[in-house]
Amino acid sequence: MRKLTVEELKRKSVEEFRESNKIPLVAVLENIRSAYNVGSVFRTADAFLLESIYICGYTARPPHKEISKTALGAEESVNWKYFTEACQAIEDLRRQGFKVFAAEQTLNSLPLHTLENNASEKIAVVLGNEVTGVEQSTIQLCDGTIEIPQLGMKHSLNISVAAGIIFWELAKQHLKEDDG
Amino acid sequence: MRKLTVEELKRKSVEEFRESNKIPLVAVLENIRSAYNVGSVFRTADAFLLESIYICGYTARPPHKEISKTALGAEESVNWKYFTEACQAIEDLRRQGFKVFAAEQTLNSLPLHTLENNASEKIAVVLGNEVTGVEQSTIQLCDGTIEIPQLGMKHSLNISVAAGIIFWELAKQHLKEDDG
Repeated sequence: MRKLTVEELKRKSVEEFRESNKIPLVAVLENIRSAYNVGSVFRTADAFLLESIYICGYTARPPHKEISKTALGAEESVNWKYFTEACQAIEDLRRQGFKVFAAEQTLNSLPLHTLENNASEKIAVVLGNEVTGVEQSTIQLCDGTIEIPQLGMKHSLNISVAAGIIFWELAKQHLKEDDG
Repeated sequence: MRKLTVEELKRKSVEEFRESNKIPLVAVLENIRSAYNVGSVFRTADAFLLESIYICGYTARPPHKEISKTALGAEESVNWKYFTEACQAIEDLRRQGFKVFAAEQTLNSLPLHTLENNASEKIAVVLGNEVTGVEQSTIQLCDGTIEIPQLGMKHSLNISVAAGIIFWELAKQHLKEDDG
């Protein structure tokens, strides 16, 4: 069980990353307060080859010192676009054929582990503010809401952890395809 | 798609959490540099009802201001134990019948999405230092290594994101059981 060296990990260079076929998944960040969380989502987006990050509202965007501190360079490779309002981001995604979900606990949200997505679907997930979550007006524009089942006493997960779990679950379908 | 109120989320109180049956999963933290990462793992452990967190080496432990900042109170509910060395933690887990895996990229690590665990298995996962990963000497004591497949240019995920993804994947089996 020897640890792999950096060379053995066979990661992509910035150029290889930019030119590679992405997984048709987009993270939409709405009014995220912490730039560290934004950086962490960039790092996750790099790992799972997300097509893009759509940054909305007052969410910090690169170049930004705190984003760099947690993105560790992923902000140089991952595609991103900025929109003043999440509704514009959603409109843009719809035009490209994306289904848009909000990561939120609503009356009829879909538990993440029951989600049956097929790998050809283009999916975007909106992640909202650390305290107030996704705006109700933004939720209304979505095709549905996805919820990570939580069994403890806290109301939510850290947003970069939630993004990691959701995009892992969605990207995994593509890994399985590649295996087969 | 109205957002649920805090009451509607029906989360547990600290007392209910302490008395509830946990999922037989343990997070082992070895020489984690950032207390914020430790706090975030506490929050995740709360969400997925982990049995315990085993804190090893120079990893920060509660009470700690930075842990509280990201654990948001989960450090009051989630069980934890401290060990000066990870090998002692592993010994303790073995005695209780746990299988112990390291989250690490090795020559023969198991990709997370191919992991077939049955819900009755007791599983512990060792998460290592942010830069150097799990110590090679600790890896040698484990039953195996688990790897989150990563497709981009970075070598690893943030440790609290990696913990979230791994424990989501393991806890999910139990959610499915409860559904059935």
